[in-house]
Amino acid sequence: MINKLSQKNLLSKKHTQDYRQYLALNRNVAGFNLKKKELIYTLVSDKSKGAYVWDIDNNKYIDLTMGFGSILFGHNYGPIRKELELQLTKSWSVGPISPLAGKLAVEISKVTNTERVAFFNSGTEAVMVALRIAKAVTNKKYFVFFKGAYHGTFDTLLTLKKDLKTNIAKASIPGITQSILNESFLFEYGSEEAISFIQENKEKIAAVLVEPVQSRNPSFQPKSFLQKLRNVTLENEIALIFDEVITGFRIQMGGCQEYFNIEADIVTYGKVIGGGLPIGIVAGKSKYLDALDGGAWQYGDDSIPQIKSTFVAGTFCHHPLAMAASLKTLEILNLSNGELLQELNNTTTAFCERMNAFFYKTV
Amino acid sequence: MINKLSQKNLLSKKHTQDYRQYLALNRNVAGFNLKKKELIYTLVSDKSKGAYVWDIDNNKYIDLTMGFGSILFGHNYGPIRKELELQLTKSWSVGPISPLAGKLAVEISKVTNTERVAFFNSGTEAVMVALRIAKAVTNKKYFVFFKGAYHGTFDTLLTLKKDLKTNIAKASIPGITQSILNESFLFEYGSEEAISFIQENKEKIAAVLVEPVQSRNPSFQPKSFLQKLRNVTLENEIALIFDEVITGFRIQMGGCQEYFNIEADIVTYGKVIGGGLPIGIVAGKSKYLDALDGGAWQYGDDSIPQIKSTFVAGTFCHHPLAMAASLKTLEILNLSNGELLQELNNTTTAFCERMNAFFYKTV
Repeated sequence: MINKLSQKNLLSKKHTQDYRQYLALNRNVAGFNLKKKELIYTLVSDKSKGAYVWDIDNNKYIDLTMGFGSILFGHNYGPIRKELELQLTKSWSVGPISPLAGKLAVEISKVTNTERVAFFNSGTEAVMVALRIAKAVTNKKYFVFFKGAYHGTFDTLLTLKKDLKTNIAKASIPGITQSILNESFLFEYGSEEAISFIQENKEKIAAVLVEPVQSRNPSFQPKSFLQKLRNVTLENEIALIFDEVITGFRIQMGGCQEYFNIEADIVTYGKVIGGGLPIGIVAGKSKYLDALDGGAWQYGDDSIPQIKSTFVAGTFCHHPLAMAASLKTLEILNLSNGELLQELNNTTTAFCERMNAFFYKTV
Repeated sequence: MINKLSQKNLLSKKHTQDYRQYLALNRNVAGFNLKKKELIYTLVSDKSKGAYVWDIDNNKYIDLTMGFGSILFGHNYGPIRKELELQLTKSWSVGPISPLAGKLAVEISKVTNTERVAFFNSGTEAVMVALRIAKAVTNKKYFVFFKGAYHGTFDTLLTLKKDLKTNIAKASIPGITQSILNESFLFEYGSEEAISFIQENKEKIAAVLVEPVQSRNPSFQPKSFLQKLRNVTLENEIALIFDEVITGFRIQMGGCQEYFNIEADIVTYGKVIGGGLPIGIVAGKSKYLDALDGGAWQYGDDSIPQIKSTFVAGTFCHHPLAMAASLKTLEILNLSNGELLQELNNTTTAFCERMNAFFYKTV
């Protein structure tokens, strides 16, 4: 079986082997074990369309994850490609700000019911900034996060272990040191223990970071727990951060905030909203987002920025190509008024049911 | 004077004001003070070509920094735009790996005299990963960095202050906490004190991170200090990291490693090499890069990854558009065999001399 499969991917396998010396790529060893090693390679592809990708051996695949969740309308979707081609005739470099950034901020603010929006390059950067502004505004240091969540690769979040007495996240990955984890507190998702801990340590906790529906465990949707988190954070000047890099613009137009009818203080987005281009977004209440630029002031009077800004930066933030792809994505989603997402959810549910029935029969 | 200038930018200024409520953008308050406040806005632009950008008031500017250093050949450079248009007909989404990634890794490895190469989304991500693999491989925790350097926005690097007794970087920016800085040690660039500290704490220091020519102080080029850093790190199993996000593929084809004839262990790149698209690169010795994927192994025998990997990830890493723009950039640079960079350096020097002469006369 392993042999048969790997025979279909001779060129991808050879490519993985030939370039391994030069290209350091962790996907090339994902899930490595000795028994499966002849199947441990990445599919190499330079052709894709709609639901399909073709690898360099010319096998055709259905991409069930749609570009790790980053291309909702399918690969090489015409309307977005055209938008990129058009933007290439105007400006596709950074420096002055693109007029598309402001427009996109307004549109995202409307759809997600957030007050302000800021653009970065990846979900990882967005989560890093979300924690930074939460700490800046509350002037506190700790944050709470949950097992099973995926929040990207910022160091303070990279472990699956914790100290059972203190609940402090515990170093377990090479290169991630304990000092960087010492303000991160890790709990079981949905546990009462988390709520009590937050209550007891409210003076020190700046933020609770949560992936409301965990991509690793999508059937667990603890609405009442999320409501408790919202209450305890609201009462204690703690920022509730929804990491919606995966669920945003996907579970519903307004993401998990709408799905659970719970308003977060800060929300991170990425993937779908980029329309295939790299993007990371931090949105939320002015109270927190103002930490990026000092908040409201006007020309022609004596108003000034109201709060001291923290530091953020990034050469490629608000890249015109990402802004153009993102605006078009939102335009298409808005046109369907959320029905497209509902249809997709229905199709996916039906597909999962058929797959499950098939596997139950087969096993 | 302020009035006259701001009259030229009515639309940019209005745009900044109109969108401030929605778009949180720190560039809109950069250098804020009450006297200059009528001039504190960003230029808004959706048109650029070569050395020029046009703002929405239709003023034409020469972009001296060329897209924050990210577009060496100028705005909307035809050959790279064509490459992007071509790639848009093939594949421009992530998921399977693009065959361009391996090719680009080989080419970068050749030009920069590094053994292995890995791709991320921004300079910030690249620096974060560089520190992570240094700590993973040396199994040590501290690192040394220098005042005046700019290394992006990873939390462990975000301060300009230090404790004068311990040399530990000291929290000074809202939202950046002391615990995250406690393994960061800050010194004056070029100081003997730094060398002694490294020598004395060699058992604990994983890495020395240096921007060899600081973009904030480009005339200071301390070759003999860098040589000393190379010696003391080599003797003590400490990773020497060159942050060449700004100098890479710019000061010379081989960057500061070639310019100073000093081989670093890990080098970060970005900006120029992306050809205008978002990119961050970590390159360097296999000894360190192997921490990303376990290093060399082959199919058809009993070889396995040799070292335990740390964790890195990113939906948009190796984006086909970034890979295509980057390959084309390198192809053009290779064709000129480095002469283009030499010419550009000469032109820039001549320009600076004329500007300095003018200002000396005027003041």
